[in-house]
Amino acid sequence: MTAGLAGLPIRDELRGHTPYGAPQLQVSVRLNTNENAYSLPDEVVAAMERALAATLRDLNRYPEREAVALRAGLAAYLGHGLDASRVWAANGSNEVQQQLLQAFGGPGRTALGFTPAYSMHPLISTATGTGWIDGRRSADFGLTVSDVVAQVREHRPDVVFLCSPNNPTGTSLPLDVVSAVLDEAPGMVVVDEAYAEFRRPGTPSALELLPGHQRLVVTRTMSKAFALAGVRLGYLAADPAVVEAVQLVRLPYHLSALTQAAASAALAHADVLLDTVEAVKHQRDRIVATLRDYGLTVADSDANFVLFGQFRDQKAVWQALLTRDVLVRDVGLPGWLRVSAGTPAETDVFLAAMKELV
Amino acid sequence: MTAGLAGLPIRDELRGHTPYGAPQLQVSVRLNTNENAYSLPDEVVAAMERALAATLRDLNRYPEREAVALRAGLAAYLGHGLDASRVWAANGSNEVQQQLLQAFGGPGRTALGFTPAYSMHPLISTATGTGWIDGRRSADFGLTVSDVVAQVREHRPDVVFLCSPNNPTGTSLPLDVVSAVLDEAPGMVVVDEAYAEFRRPGTPSALELLPGHQRLVVTRTMSKAFALAGVRLGYLAADPAVVEAVQLVRLPYHLSALTQAAASAALAHADVLLDTVEAVKHQRDRIVATLRDYGLTVADSDANFVLFGQFRDQKAVWQALLTRDVLVRDVGLPGWLRVSAGTPAETDVFLAAMKELV
Repeated sequence: MTAGLAGLPIRDELRGHTPYGAPQLQVSVRLNTNENAYSLPDEVVAAMERALAATLRDLNRYPEREAVALRAGLAAYLGHGLDASRVWAANGSNEVQQQLLQAFGGPGRTALGFTPAYSMHPLISTATGTGWIDGRRSADFGLTVSDVVAQVREHRPDVVFLCSPNNPTGTSLPLDVVSAVLDEAPGMVVVDEAYAEFRRPGTPSALELLPGHQRLVVTRTMSKAFALAGVRLGYLAADPAVVEAVQLVRLPYHLSALTQAAASAALAHADVLLDTVEAVKHQRDRIVATLRDYGLTVADSDANFVLFGQFRDQKAVWQALLTRDVLVRDVGLPGWLRVSAGTPAETDVFLAAMKELV
Repeated sequence: MTAGLAGLPIRDELRGHTPYGAPQLQVSVRLNTNENAYSLPDEVVAAMERALAATLRDLNRYPEREAVALRAGLAAYLGHGLDASRVWAANGSNEVQQQLLQAFGGPGRTALGFTPAYSMHPLISTATGTGWIDGRRSADFGLTVSDVVAQVREHRPDVVFLCSPNNPTGTSLPLDVVSAVLDEAPGMVVVDEAYAEFRRPGTPSALELLPGHQRLVVTRTMSKAFALAGVRLGYLAADPAVVEAVQLVRLPYHLSALTQAAASAALAHADVLLDTVEAVKHQRDRIVATLRDYGLTVADSDANFVLFGQFRDQKAVWQALLTRDVLVRDVGLPGWLRVSAGTPAETDVFLAAMKELV
């Protein structure tokens, strides 16, 4: 914290903090933020160009405030009988989570998550004045029905965050765990499925549990499988009343006309964009198998990244990889590192570097 | 509130609320949201097309998280010796205000504004858990040094919101009022200058007061003078420590690559875009003069809109204008309506309708 910042009347709980975010370094092999390694195909670029060009002249007008057409497109993609009234979109799933906490968390309320999980959940809780409760996982990062039920019963949180597949571990949650939380929790249950499209065959989505569960929210993003991290489009599926609730706290016109146009164009070409998912999963499975061959401990992954260790000093390994022009993520979990599954060539470079290091 | 929403555990202070926003109705003459009436000129459309096209292929990557190039462009536009370290940008000035309240307001803290003013300030305060204090203006909507000093002294707010030009009244604030608040306020002072480019000659900007005032924040937007409401780009100018403070609460990658590209392209053609400002001001002055000729009470305006009245029933006048295909804004101020200055043709239609109605 600079002297200038120290002299400002910022909130006490922010003092000593640093802004969230992985280093944005220029390296050849960037495997640190779980981006999709594949740039956009010509067909999608062309469709987006047309869609964006059609909005430019009228940018003097505010965008369609409720983004109904985009939400209808997202609902159609998700299936499960969803429609626009059951889907809400915002600038990245971070903004979706923030809106959920503004509506259902906030001052005097609490949110429970099971660490290690997506590190923005506690940060957004703090930023919205929601008390954060750091729940426990077992040593293998798993979560059982009895684990979650006991912690929900103990803390009675207003919001429970579950991640499936979980970041940074990559592991999915059995639906009976989600069901058990729904039965026990007094408030909202948010299942963050940012990486859902990468799950292995047979792994379920909490979307299946939406019917009959008014307090369940499933959040998704176009940043990963859709390869649209630069567009910032996150969304949720839930009961229509949940959509009404976030509309009470959303900033008006929060989604730009450009965002709505680009995301809708991408959805119209979802099949082409999602072609990369199988390729990414293949590299992910290759990373898991190869690092295990190297004698490392590697978590099973249903996501586009892999958590691996254990190292005496993961910072030294992170640095050694950076020296080899490979950027992975130190998620602050002693002994572990996280790597995104890249292209075959990027994966080659990463695995060759790891072979030297183990 | 639907039965479904009533059954959800939303925050008590949201119960009974409806989502913020003017009706988005299809009419010929839309003068209700202070948009710039002029669509974008060919030169700017072409520049944006090029800038956006250059980003599309790499949208699989997260955007530049701190948007430094865009902030440098905004600083250059503002002048006053500003640079990127003193400017911050977000998705509309609403998100800028939200970030300021998350950093400097929030639970256990208060914000003071002087009603009637921009109606999002109290709403964002509520959504961030900041206690809202509804300050008073005199009957002519003015604010004097003694008015503001007395109220700041009484309430000791953590954040003071001033609007200049003020929305919905259109009136600017003399700098001695801002200075007096800076001298008296224990916390941050935010001057919302969304409409600054439309001020009449000789009206100052609070940017002049930035040197030596670390707790002063001036917010601006590209929605109005730049005719970019659809892009959602708001920004602030302040001490670098204020920028550091909002970086502690901003959602990472909050500004999409598309937003950054489009806004930067617009800034590179600021002179062309701002050509409309004089035309809008001319219509604004014409509305003020004509409505006064009609015997109405009309506030002086430094903005792109005009507050006029007083009507026994402003809702009836609003409806009568809508019947004539003209949409103006009922800002909830008994007896008053607000109209945006449109094109000459739109202004003709509005003034002709008003002539019939008075």
